[in-house]
Amino acid sequence: GMPLRIAVDILGFADEEGVRFQATYLGSGACIGPLDRELLALRDDSGKCLADVIEDEGWHEGAEDIRYALSEAAGYLEVHIEQGRVLESMGLPLGVVPSICGQTRARVRLTGQAEHAGTTPMHLRRDALAGAAECVLLVEEYARERVPLVTTVGKLLVSPGVGNAVAGEVVFTLDIRHPQDASRKEAMVALRSACEAIAKKRGLAMDWETVQESAAVDCDTRMVGILQQAILDYTPPLIPSGAGHDAVVFSKVMPVAMLFVRCQGGLSHHPDESITREDLAAAIHATADFLTRFQSLGGGHG
Amino acid sequence: GMPLRIAVDILGFADEEGVRFQATYLGSGACIGPLDRELLALRDDSGKCLADVIEDEGWHEGAEDIRYALSEAAGYLEVHIEQGRVLESMGLPLGVVPSICGQTRARVRLTGQAEHAGTTPMHLRRDALAGAAECVLLVEEYARERVPLVTTVGKLLVSPGVGNAVAGEVVFTLDIRHPQDASRKEAMVALRSACEAIAKKRGLAMDWETVQESAAVDCDTRMVGILQQAILDYTPPLIPSGAGHDAVVFSKVMPVAMLFVRCQGGLSHHPDESITREDLAAAIHATADFLTRFQSLGGGHG
Repeated sequence: GMPLRIAVDILGFADEEGVRFQATYLGSGACIGPLDRELLALRDDSGKCLADVIEDEGWHEGAEDIRYALSEAAGYLEVHIEQGRVLESMGLPLGVVPSICGQTRARVRLTGQAEHAGTTPMHLRRDALAGAAECVLLVEEYARERVPLVTTVGKLLVSPGVGNAVAGEVVFTLDIRHPQDASRKEAMVALRSACEAIAKKRGLAMDWETVQESAAVDCDTRMVGILQQAILDYTPPLIPSGAGHDAVVFSKVMPVAMLFVRCQGGLSHHPDESITREDLAAAIHATADFLTRFQSLGGGHG
Repeated sequence: GMPLRIAVDILGFADEEGVRFQATYLGSGACIGPLDRELLALRDDSGKCLADVIEDEGWHEGAEDIRYALSEAAGYLEVHIEQGRVLESMGLPLGVVPSICGQTRARVRLTGQAEHAGTTPMHLRRDALAGAAECVLLVEEYARERVPLVTTVGKLLVSPGVGNAVAGEVVFTLDIRHPQDASRKEAMVALRSACEAIAKKRGLAMDWETVQESAAVDCDTRMVGILQQAILDYTPPLIPSGAGHDAVVFSKVMPVAMLFVRCQGGLSHHPDESITREDLAAAIHATADFLTRFQSLGGGHG
């Protein structure tokens, strides 16, 4: 029942995660422009293609009425669970997102020599796993000293991978995220060079493949400021989003902002994902207050 | 054509490695006593049991004539490729084995918390892989400072094991070998305690399971001395055997010694395993010289 001078569209998007068609941001993507032909041709596990699914649901891909043109709206505000534990650890229900991190993903291969664990003295070994272990610790330490950088080695495969043989080869992934692209790129260069030095020192060969890079998206400074003011009881923390969101897509056509809501244990993409009624109420109040302040400051023209 | 006053039996053993029946030292085991009923009941991949295979080959398990009773023979000398690179790295064809290392094998599980690689700041993580990496480096460093100890983490499995998630659990193997049992046990206690400290510091749970322990076997001091003298051109290095050998079985009924022969690249259990004719000749000469010296010193009474 809140009177507003601006029009507000409330949107919910299908398949942000890309679970069904292995392509992210499908719903929001359709809202800012026609989906690529390649996307429409993607098939789900049952063999059905995306274009047919859209038709079956009563839509058609050419539907212009769901589209937002460039600057057609004054702004986009996304309310999302944090998917992390920062708010929980601070004991606060809400946080404001200043930016959505850029990502670099790399695959690193270290090659040493597989050998008999019993007959090869330590000084003759070229142990790919010991080399990888040094890289893992280096990657961790580098980010610890450079908040809000996060770096992760989440996958690591050892070959031959048996208890009585020195590892001949290890392949591991490296995930680097930072709200500033320059800092992320600096991290990648530094970590690559440090891993190379570790490999060289140990007589290992290193092969580095950068498999993905995506740029950071800054939230709109003015909207971020209004959102901070809309949280009345405390100064909300600024939490860069390490995960991607539909806001990334909308940032191409309008200013965006995001409100993070505390979630239990940081758990996400899991049946136990949950937030409290109280935190939900806090998010609704902050959103309403944001809208009031936004229109007062001349934010709305839609 | 060498005249000897002692009797020499030349033996070659079947299945030291246990490839067919997944049980080691079968041939040598039969030479020192009846094989266990459990062993005889083992079946190969075709479903044939060991007892039947022995009968098919014209033997029967009760055959007493292949047995060596306690102290029936004066000694056992085994000539074997080194299966390592120590001799190659020293540029020498032969080495003498003072002892066969005991082994401890353990399985270590570190449990932290699997989390989103993008949304979990470094200081909130309980990264099982980073913890395991610290353990791997500690294990390596501990042995480097304690020659001839060898320690190996050869298998390491990460869960969930995906690039965009912090590792929630890592299971790794630890292989510890030393010619002195006391040093091996000391290493196990020290490494277990150090891994526990790493886990505690990082908020990880550690589960340690010792899955195998076998004692070291000392070669006979007198036979080792004679073998060293039998290598005329240089002082042969003493190389503890990190791998098990049939000599382990024979040590139960008589003094044993082993001569190691250089092999290419330390390669073993592989079609490319090879030694040179010259090194083979050196091993034959050393063995012949050993026999002459051994009988002169009253070694033979068989």
